[in-house]
Amino acid sequence: MAPVTNARVIFSKVPEGIPQPGTTTCDTSETIDIENVPLQGGFLVKTLVVSIDPYLRNLMVAPGTKSLLPTYTLGQPLMSYGVGVVVRSDCRDMKAGDHVYGTLPHQQYFVQKDLADLRVLDNTHRLPWSTFVGAAGMPGQTAFYGWKEFSHATRGETVFVSGAAGAVGSFIIQLAKMDGLKVIASAGSDEKVEFVKQLGADVAFNYKEVDTAKVLAENGPINIYWDNVGGPTLDAALEAATQHARFIECGQISGYNTGGAPVKNLMNVVTKCISMNGFMVTSLEKKYVEEFYRVVPEQIAKGKIRHREQVFEGLQNVEEVLRRVLKGETQGKAVVQVATK
Amino acid sequence: MAPVTNARVIFSKVPEGIPQPGTTTCDTSETIDIENVPLQGGFLVKTLVVSIDPYLRNLMVAPGTKSLLPTYTLGQPLMSYGVGVVVRSDCRDMKAGDHVYGTLPHQQYFVQKDLADLRVLDNTHRLPWSTFVGAAGMPGQTAFYGWKEFSHATRGETVFVSGAAGAVGSFIIQLAKMDGLKVIASAGSDEKVEFVKQLGADVAFNYKEVDTAKVLAENGPINIYWDNVGGPTLDAALEAATQHARFIECGQISGYNTGGAPVKNLMNVVTKCISMNGFMVTSLEKKYVEEFYRVVPEQIAKGKIRHREQVFEGLQNVEEVLRRVLKGETQGKAVVQVATK
Repeated sequence: MAPVTNARVIFSKVPEGIPQPGTTTCDTSETIDIENVPLQGGFLVKTLVVSIDPYLRNLMVAPGTKSLLPTYTLGQPLMSYGVGVVVRSDCRDMKAGDHVYGTLPHQQYFVQKDLADLRVLDNTHRLPWSTFVGAAGMPGQTAFYGWKEFSHATRGETVFVSGAAGAVGSFIIQLAKMDGLKVIASAGSDEKVEFVKQLGADVAFNYKEVDTAKVLAENGPINIYWDNVGGPTLDAALEAATQHARFIECGQISGYNTGGAPVKNLMNVVTKCISMNGFMVTSLEKKYVEEFYRVVPEQIAKGKIRHREQVFEGLQNVEEVLRRVLKGETQGKAVVQVATK
Repeated sequence: MAPVTNARVIFSKVPEGIPQPGTTTCDTSETIDIENVPLQGGFLVKTLVVSIDPYLRNLMVAPGTKSLLPTYTLGQPLMSYGVGVVVRSDCRDMKAGDHVYGTLPHQQYFVQKDLADLRVLDNTHRLPWSTFVGAAGMPGQTAFYGWKEFSHATRGETVFVSGAAGAVGSFIIQLAKMDGLKVIASAGSDEKVEFVKQLGADVAFNYKEVDTAKVLAENGPINIYWDNVGGPTLDAALEAATQHARFIECGQISGYNTGGAPVKNLMNVVTKCISMNGFMVTSLEKKYVEEFYRVVPEQIAKGKIRHREQVFEGLQNVEEVLRRVLKGETQGKAVVQVATK
């Protein structure tokens, strides 16, 4: 077989604010000889899906910028969670046809030296592969780990979830309902509000149309705040919190394009004895990952955990999808499908 | 004996910003007949010392303002931690000559119905009574409880303490040194910087003259931040924190007169997996109070815990002392002595 195109999404320019066209380039100039590319003890992966998440914006920074996650290198492909299928393997951990999950480059094919942080997926419940970057992947793990570790949820308590229609937020609503909590949920469109109500949110509102502080004053106080957004929403949650409230800091998307959205009500942390815990999915992985894969894919297959995803076709759409994600214009988990099998 | 004057400090006007003269009134129009005032099963207390702390400002609010602590009532005396001596008692828990510690009204004499939250002090180590509102009282307890509960200190780690020359901060420096930590301390004058160095701070600086972020960048990163001030100092600490840093939120004095100082670097809480815990001394009292009184007065008597206090004479000075406390112009614990015995 002749060499085929091996398209890649290259990081081309450090963006200001929401990434503008030209931040990345979909480069199709490279080719790969699938049958003959040397594996050198590794394996060849064909990328099936890549996940587009808000935090990718934080990796698009100037060279040398201090960051806790590896940032993107100008001229090199973006990376994100994804699922690929092994095409050929020289590696004993892996055989052709295996599916792997982990951080993949945004390119159609790549040779991987060793398993590193990749996980071979066991798809007993025959979920679509895209699910493994959503409810059965990093966003689901984020929700599952963070809730287990920090919520200390007690039946009858009230939780407020911002960014509630997103992949993490929608999972949290369902975990909280399973634990017997009252759920207040905010989202950025009426359509999203309808969706989170269907998932079981007791109170749901469009934060662009209704004042968050007012909704919380009427339906709170809140014992737990699952924070995906930071900024003024966090301020409102601090005002509406009970004594000994737990704040789980999962993301602060409101500040991602502005270098941080100011918060002024932190004095409540002192007076209300609030515990605020930030975390990254990787920091809790060891503790909960096996439980997650044992429990969650089955719950999804049985419809006990519902989710939705919006699938876009082709690497050429990565930049546009990220822009939509950052503007809150996607519905559920945003995924770019690179190949179907 | 004829009735004597019973001076009181009355809350007269809700202040804006730092309390201006006239916020309180020292009223000397009332008298009390010490020998004959009816006790009705209670006891008569003569106030010896009252503590002047930054948080008193938060209680000087308009009627009906939401607050977690009981706020001051216009026309009624201020209240704060203090020590008094029992003059007469009809109460079996208490006898004349006993000393009591707790929240007292700012007046020379008062009849108390029952022990309520007051504690009868055992002064085995013969400390001055003023010490029991300082290092052996609420500020010492705040430091002791908060450090025990939230620091998770490990030998060799680095802690940053703001407001380090104050009653709580200076205690924290010494607890941290006992635990084998490197201590970075900030204070608001060169004189205070000298004091905290004497207490053992490894790095100490005047935050009005030197950039906090720069000092932390050079001497950090920090594993623990003991926060007395909030605002821009908290922002600098968030930038300088390690992964899994512990932030202990004890106070945010920088916002007390302005309704909250904005903080913009909270995204670090997520990316660095920071735990931030607020607390009030009362919330941890049950767990640690007996250990505190068993350990700390003796450590103070033996010079193992050093402290300093600035004693002002007479209730007529309460307002001026609070003003100085809020402006950072006092040295160590501010106490108003109402009577010597």
